[in-house]
Amino acid sequence: MAPKAGARGSIIPVGGGEKKLRDAEILRRFAELCGGASARIVIIPTASQMKETGRRYERAFRELKVGEARSIPLEERADCEDARVLEAIASATGVFMTGGNQLRLSTNLGGTSVCSLLRERNAEGLHVAGTSAGASYLSEHMIAMGDEGPTPRNGMVTLVPGLGLTNRLIIDQHFRQRDRLGRLLAALAYNPIATGIGLDEDTAAFIGPDDTIEVVGSGGLTIVDPSDIEHSAMDSTPKGKPVSLYGIRLHILAHGDRYSMVTKKAESAPERR
Amino acid sequence: MAPKAGARGSIIPVGGGEKKLRDAEILRRFAELCGGASARIVIIPTASQMKETGRRYERAFRELKVGEARSIPLEERADCEDARVLEAIASATGVFMTGGNQLRLSTNLGGTSVCSLLRERNAEGLHVAGTSAGASYLSEHMIAMGDEGPTPRNGMVTLVPGLGLTNRLIIDQHFRQRDRLGRLLAALAYNPIATGIGLDEDTAAFIGPDDTIEVVGSGGLTIVDPSDIEHSAMDSTPKGKPVSLYGIRLHILAHGDRYSMVTKKAESAPERR
Repeated sequence: MAPKAGARGSIIPVGGGEKKLRDAEILRRFAELCGGASARIVIIPTASQMKETGRRYERAFRELKVGEARSIPLEERADCEDARVLEAIASATGVFMTGGNQLRLSTNLGGTSVCSLLRERNAEGLHVAGTSAGASYLSEHMIAMGDEGPTPRNGMVTLVPGLGLTNRLIIDQHFRQRDRLGRLLAALAYNPIATGIGLDEDTAAFIGPDDTIEVVGSGGLTIVDPSDIEHSAMDSTPKGKPVSLYGIRLHILAHGDRYSMVTKKAESAPERR
Repeated sequence: MAPKAGARGSIIPVGGGEKKLRDAEILRRFAELCGGASARIVIIPTASQMKETGRRYERAFRELKVGEARSIPLEERADCEDARVLEAIASATGVFMTGGNQLRLSTNLGGTSVCSLLRERNAEGLHVAGTSAGASYLSEHMIAMGDEGPTPRNGMVTLVPGLGLTNRLIIDQHFRQRDRLGRLLAALAYNPIATGIGLDEDTAAFIGPDDTIEVVGSGGLTIVDPSDIEHSAMDSTPKGKPVSLYGIRLHILAHGDRYSMVTKKAESAPERR
């Protein structure tokens, strides 16, 4: 999964609740991808309001024997212009954003030098991962909040601008645990232009530079492909009411499975073929 | 304002209520930009549910002596795969999207071949204009609906994916007439990454390939530059409450004034310098 020279880095949304010590498969794969013993990982704990979050990830990555793992608290917008912060990101091989509240990421990082640098360096090869709130923040259209339930209803989801590493995806997390299919479908019903991905806890999508998704972890990944939707009634549905939506294609993927965002096809894990 | 060879076409949001017969300054400028007597203009009336909307714009552009003006009703998603429709857009020099409900545009065009073709051809030089709902639809983040009033409050604006010709702008229309500063500020408070523009009625922003905005029309253009915002409290503001937001820069522009999205500077109309 190593990127070609000049290719963009991987984008790795994680569904939250990933294992951090034993069987820390997702963090281990991320650490390897970033260079293992020579990896320099920057942790951005901004979404969290718990002081110890950054330290916990520093410890988890050090257990995995990475070269360097350093948490950078970005508490205010002014912190995102600090020369030392920008240097740390400029020399990192991977960035990991923790969970918490995704609006803390968008309001504090949005439009700052950290935000521009993350976009530029990901385009050049920096791997960027985020879990839970950090996962939601990765794409151009971010689910900020919403209601539970499997049926899409008008007004059940709040979309706002995110970091913008890709505009081809809308990402949701804690997917099965918090019953979020409805809000992901509602997001796509507004405009069936992106692909929806719903990540269960302890489950990651490793999205390579060729826009192939590989699933890593113990849960499922739900792919919602709206490219053949025949009709969405979001323009005429009253607030709170279910939205008619015809022709969605759904895939459920498990550990090792792949999905190409180019061909829109899923493929089994090698051991199960 | 003619684009350089290979440069993207202009993006022209209009605030709604533009004059269509006498003193049709905005439509006249658009017709000239698209080639005047050799212009081939495609009108997309999808946002409107009034049958005569497309015909009204055909007549207005013919009065202005354009080469061709043709309304293409795209009533359903299947219409956006029709070979004749795609040919008409492929050979157009300008596309004009009417007012109505912007969700009719995003739900019917989003992810279809018409949507891809508009994005590709604008990148190659096709000029794309939209008025009212059509204006909102032009950018990556579209205001689908919201509440009135000058103070931003949490929950007062609904953002959804738009056509995506630019992700550097969030566009609002009928701006003074419907008291929409609050909802535009709320959109930027979620993530101060884009520039906000609020268009009064009968007022257009001609956005050239160099990301310079020129104002044409009888009303004002409000520019909200969030690039120096020190703090946004959108992450911690309860629903319905006012959002603290420090350090917004505001510009009000009138006919002939310009604004560079690169330097973030406004400049007077030549006759008023």
